[in-house]
Amino acid sequence: MGVVVQKIERADTGLIEALGRAGVATVHEAQGRTGLMGARMRPIQQDLTIAGSAVTISAPPGDNWMIHVAIEQLQAGDVMVLAPTSPCDMGYFGDLLATSAMARGCRALIIDAGVRDTRDLRSMGFGVWSTAVSAQGTVKETLGSVNVPVVCAGALVNPGDVVIADDDGVVIVPRAKAAEVQAAAQKRLDAEEAKRQRLAAGELGLDIYAMRPRLADKGLTYI
Amino acid sequence: MGVVVQKIERADTGLIEALGRAGVATVHEAQGRTGLMGARMRPIQQDLTIAGSAVTISAPPGDNWMIHVAIEQLQAGDVMVLAPTSPCDMGYFGDLLATSAMARGCRALIIDAGVRDTRDLRSMGFGVWSTAVSAQGTVKETLGSVNVPVVCAGALVNPGDVVIADDDGVVIVPRAKAAEVQAAAQKRLDAEEAKRQRLAAGELGLDIYAMRPRLADKGLTYI
Amino acid sequence: MGVVVQKIERADTGLIEALGRAGVATVHEAQGRTGLMGARMRPIQQDLTIAGSAVTISAPPGDNWMIHVAIEQLQAGDVMVLAPTSPCDMGYFGDLLATSAMARGCRALIIDAGVRDTRDLRSMGFGVWSTAVSAQGTVKETLGSVNVPVVCAGALVNPGDVVIADDDGVVIVPRAKAAEVQAAAQKRLDAEEAKRQRLAAGELGLDIYAMRPRLADKGLTYI
Amino acid sequence: MGVVVQKIERADTGLIEALGRAGVATVHEAQGRTGLMGARMRPIQQDLTIAGSAVTISAPPGDNWMIHVAIEQLQAGDVMVLAPTSPCDMGYFGDLLATSAMARGCRALIIDAGVRDTRDLRSMGFGVWSTAVSAQGTVKETLGSVNVPVVCAGALVNPGDVVIADDDGVVIVPRAKAAEVQAAAQKRLDAEEAKRQRLAAGELGLDIYAMRPRLADKGLTYI
Amino acid sequence: MGVVVQKIERADTGLIEALGRAGVATVHEAQGRTGLMGARMRPIQQDLTIAGSAVTISAPPGDNWMIHVAIEQLQAGDVMVLAPTSPCDMGYFGDLLATSAMARGCRALIIDAGVRDTRDLRSMGFGVWSTAVSAQGTVKETLGSVNVPVVCAGALVNPGDVVIADDDGVVIVPRAKAAEVQAAAQKRLDAEEAKRQRLAAGELGLDIYAMRPRLADKGLTYI
Amino acid sequence: MGVVVQKIERADTGLIEALGRAGVATVHEAQGRTGLMGARMRPIQQDLTIAGSAVTISAPPGDNWMIHVAIEQLQAGDVMVLAPTSPCDMGYFGDLLATSAMARGCRALIIDAGVRDTRDLRSMGFGVWSTAVSAQGTVKETLGSVNVPVVCAGALVNPGDVVIADDDGVVIVPRAKAAEVQAAAQKRLDAEEAKRQRLAAGELGLDIYAMRPRLADKGLTYI
Repeated sequence: MGVVVQKIERADTGLIEALGRAGVATVHEAQGRTGLMGARMRPIQQDLTIAGSAVTISAPPGDNWMIHVAIEQLQAGDVMVLAPTSPCDMGYFGDLLATSAMARGCRALIIDAGVRDTRDLRSMGFGVWSTAVSAQGTVKETLGSVNVPVVCAGALVNPGDVVIADDDGVVIVPRAKAAEVQAAAQKRLDAEEAKRQRLAAGELGLDIYAMRPRLADKGLTYI
Repeated sequence: MGVVVQKIERADTGLIEALGRAGVATVHEAQGRTGLMGARMRPIQQDLTIAGSAVTISAPPGDNWMIHVAIEQLQAGDVMVLAPTSPCDMGYFGDLLATSAMARGCRALIIDAGVRDTRDLRSMGFGVWSTAVSAQGTVKETLGSVNVPVVCAGALVNPGDVVIADDDGVVIVPRAKAAEVQAAAQKRLDAEEAKRQRLAAGELGLDIYAMRPRLADKGLTYI
Repeated sequence: MGVVVQKIERADTGLIEALGRAGVATVHEAQGRTGLMGARMRPIQQDLTIAGSAVTISAPPGDNWMIHVAIEQLQAGDVMVLAPTSPCDMGYFGDLLATSAMARGCRALIIDAGVRDTRDLRSMGFGVWSTAVSAQGTVKETLGSVNVPVVCAGALVNPGDVVIADDDGVVIVPRAKAAEVQAAAQKRLDAEEAKRQRLAAGELGLDIYAMRPRLADKGLTYI
Repeated sequence: MGVVVQKIERADTGLIEALGRAGVATVHEAQGRTGLMGARMRPIQQDLTIAGSAVTISAPPGDNWMIHVAIEQLQAGDVMVLAPTSPCDMGYFGDLLATSAMARGCRALIIDAGVRDTRDLRSMGFGVWSTAVSAQGTVKETLGSVNVPVVCAGALVNPGDVVIADDDGVVIVPRAKAAEVQAAAQKRLDAEEAKRQRLAAGELGLDIYAMRPRLADKGLTYI
Repeated sequence: MGVVVQKIERADTGLIEALGRAGVATVHEAQGRTGLMGARMRPIQQDLTIAGSAVTISAPPGDNWMIHVAIEQLQAGDVMVLAPTSPCDMGYFGDLLATSAMARGCRALIIDAGVRDTRDLRSMGFGVWSTAVSAQGTVKETLGSVNVPVVCAGALVNPGDVVIADDDGVVIVPRAKAAEVQAAAQKRLDAEEAKRQRLAAGELGLDIYAMRPRLADKGLTYI
Repeated sequence: MGVVVQKIERADTGLIEALGRAGVATVHEAQGRTGLMGARMRPIQQDLTIAGSAVTISAPPGDNWMIHVAIEQLQAGDVMVLAPTSPCDMGYFGDLLATSAMARGCRALIIDAGVRDTRDLRSMGFGVWSTAVSAQGTVKETLGSVNVPVVCAGALVNPGDVVIADDDGVVIVPRAKAAEVQAAAQKRLDAEEAKRQRLAAGELGLDIYAMRPRLADKGLTYI
């Protein structure tokens, strides 16, 4: 506790944007179904997809002091990822902090805790995925750390990892794997498009994926 | 497990549509306050009401193989109802499966588990009521059954039962009772309209329903 | 149980409106971070802020009889606050009761239980904050009380207290403190505006609030 | 609602006792992994296994009137199974009702709600599996039904079904399948004993069940 | 916040002990089914009943400083009641604080949060009812208050109120009502004993409480 | 997925045992309040403390195949730590698997999912900390991994890390820090003993820890 790592590596901007276009479900599949945060992590807005580099925050429950410290470390395109050291639903973040973060080019906050001023945050276009909405204020008394590894909503996040978030939730791609995962995601998107057309035309997944023999082998019985 | 019932009876289309127009709360009342799914079953969209015939799916946790099997059984106007055999919040269903289901005229999915691609599902106009949103992928390894009785979010659903879903949740009407329940629902709607006008004009429920004597009998005291 | 207090004191209308303009987060801060309901209390609509005087209802689980009794006690600008005597997610309230409440000038309902007809309630413009949405009907068999102190979603509410609710949740201001809290809230709003401009211009909270020395004292280390 | 079925069929006593000796996990496996109540159903005591015939109760939330009605229907060896029509954690049942039920030879209560007087119930040797412990009192105002099908903690229970409950939870065996399930359970118990001795001697499941080739086929890699 | 009320009134010791002998369920009934904490409040030990005078603590989430302050205010027979100002499951209390509290004659802790060293606490005979068990440490940075009104697990507690806790949960009796409630509780206990004997002898509640006519009036049908 | 790391480093046996004697709360404090699993991780037995080396298992929801694979990797003194890749409360583990694990000297299982045969597990003396108890059976169809890093109940666990578990929960000490943490834990134990005696003699924490001046500085007011 009490450490701020100032220099972190980030993934290539083009890769990050491409991962964002692929979306959470596709990226999660493309990296072998890993890196997904738990389903309690929900957006406060609808129809927004973001992708960026993680600036991580480990904060005590009910204490948002480290967000101020983290904001100084932000670069354009960063996403803050905050994990409290114990479960907490208090409102760590509101419109003033969002104003400050946006001034440094930050796009979004992922927080395993609560936020407030949600109506303002939506009109500002600052993306938030949180596990609670709460006006409950926090204190500034105890240190945490910035840019250390954190476990957020069940997912391990290292500083500089790529964060993708949309209506389905949040997935983390380790920085070193960004290119490989992006390539795999693109391949899935290409393949999906062909399948979508066949399915839309009325073909069945049972036939496209040749499932019938294996279902029969397992003993599926039609009555 | 491992059974697909291919031939199921469905209720009359006109009845199904009329039940849909009545809405979940009225239908639930009209059939003696039975058949309602638990409040954890929530829509992923707003302001959509659907009604259709249940094609039921009993699926293992984290395994969506049976959805492919079920889609072959779908007819126009059907609604899929999926109950996992153990609690699960994984994303069983996304835009590709919805494309396939819509190609067969299916209108909606009711699932006591998770879905993904929710933004796409909303733009496609495919209705979903689920107990979670999650990008977490499922496997295709273990058989379940299609068109067997299932318990979904606490409600018993038989194949061919009428499913009504709106912003308030999901209610199931047994196929054999569809006509009787529809008639009772219509009667309620008619009666409600008259009451609504009296209430809007400032009359009190205390007077309209003649509650004052019974409240006094029970001992209600005004101070 | 079984008591209706007919005469309650209310706060000044101008104060109530001013508290509404300040919003939940600011009012909560302005009164020393007290009076907030728990985060499970959520709006059924978006972008609505209300403020009014509490007419409180203590009701048995699954019994909405006392809402009819309470409606007679409503005045223009009142907000109903219902706390069941045991946890309950049933649908106590729908469009007919809302019609009746609106006929008396009531603006909103705060309920630590469920509501139904949510689509209608939204189009009627009647504000609802609840802990569940459920079509499940309630009975009218057992007395509760109206305008007695209640604990609703963890907050103590006395009849006549000021209720402020928005997208962030619900906060209660004791009637006797309304003026003092409103003044403190206004002071916060004024101060925030200046800070917002400095933050938007790129100044850091670390500097505006002079946090650096205290962080160093606590041992924060930059790497 | 409001129906009491007085005459129900029960399974053979010897079969019921044999199912009880097999225990919940074995019986659940023996009937194809069906019939298990959800994991929220927990015993209030430790190291007790019971088996008996279900006398079912459908009761309104917070209303225990139907338990009195059900007790008259009890025979020696019966187990009461109560499902509220909406989620409820109130204390429906305590030592007086247990005294009455025991006077008729009833062994246990399974309830998807709360119980009270738990210390007394334990010393009386009356088995209870519940989803809550709560002293909160209930009323006697609204009818429910006795010996109708109910969904209890996610499991369908028909009157006369066999209920088996132990430290692992509660499983329901349809009356008509009791003999078949008991035979399958006994077969599992016999097979398990042999395996237990081999495992205790240090043999691996990987070898006993010949899992290695299939694991290799699926691509398991040892590093 | 930041207030310690040093002088509080307590109820008569004899009354407190008598309320403890009556137990939670009986006392809750005797005072009109009020004052009960929610069912999430659970004992860490079995078969212990305590009764005492409430010394209340309002504490920030994750900050146990005020417990040290409260201990100085304890008298023999007191019970500490701690409510965090926001939901928190951290471990506020362990064996050292229990040692200190016991040195002043305190019997138990009721806490809407977590405790640790639970094995030691059980062997010391110090009673604990909590909503979590957690080793997570707390800080000592932010003030709370001692002996102010608090809402703990949904119940309003004023300093000096009587706290009764047993295996069924926790109930609060306002100090001023202790005598009246104790008398009502004793009356219930006396009446229950007679009923218990009749029920044990096989008489039915249906007959003892003369329920049959009212059930028939409501329309109960025997098949 | 699909990887088994066969060779892992373990901490020194003496250190592991000493950490076990210190217990979860003390070790958690000694390593700077890190490494604690969430409060939903609960023991199925009382008064048992274990310490050992982590053999980690990443398993699909509802699939316990990898436990068989992991058992082959176990050495005397190991503790299995299983994290499902998505939330799951099914019963992955029972008495047969425990028999097999004990034959290899394994002491305990930590699992962010369910277990069954809990009565047998307790009589065998095999320690279990789980997030559910459930008889629900799992399949053997999909690969996971053994001895890879996992996030279990919110804590990061690397293979070979030291696991300490007691009635308060579970804490993980990274292998490389075991000596340092054990030394710090011992220091705490020594210091606590002296404090315990002073507290037992009636001295106040307010005085022992010299808290009064800082409380006054913060503005604590005695009335």
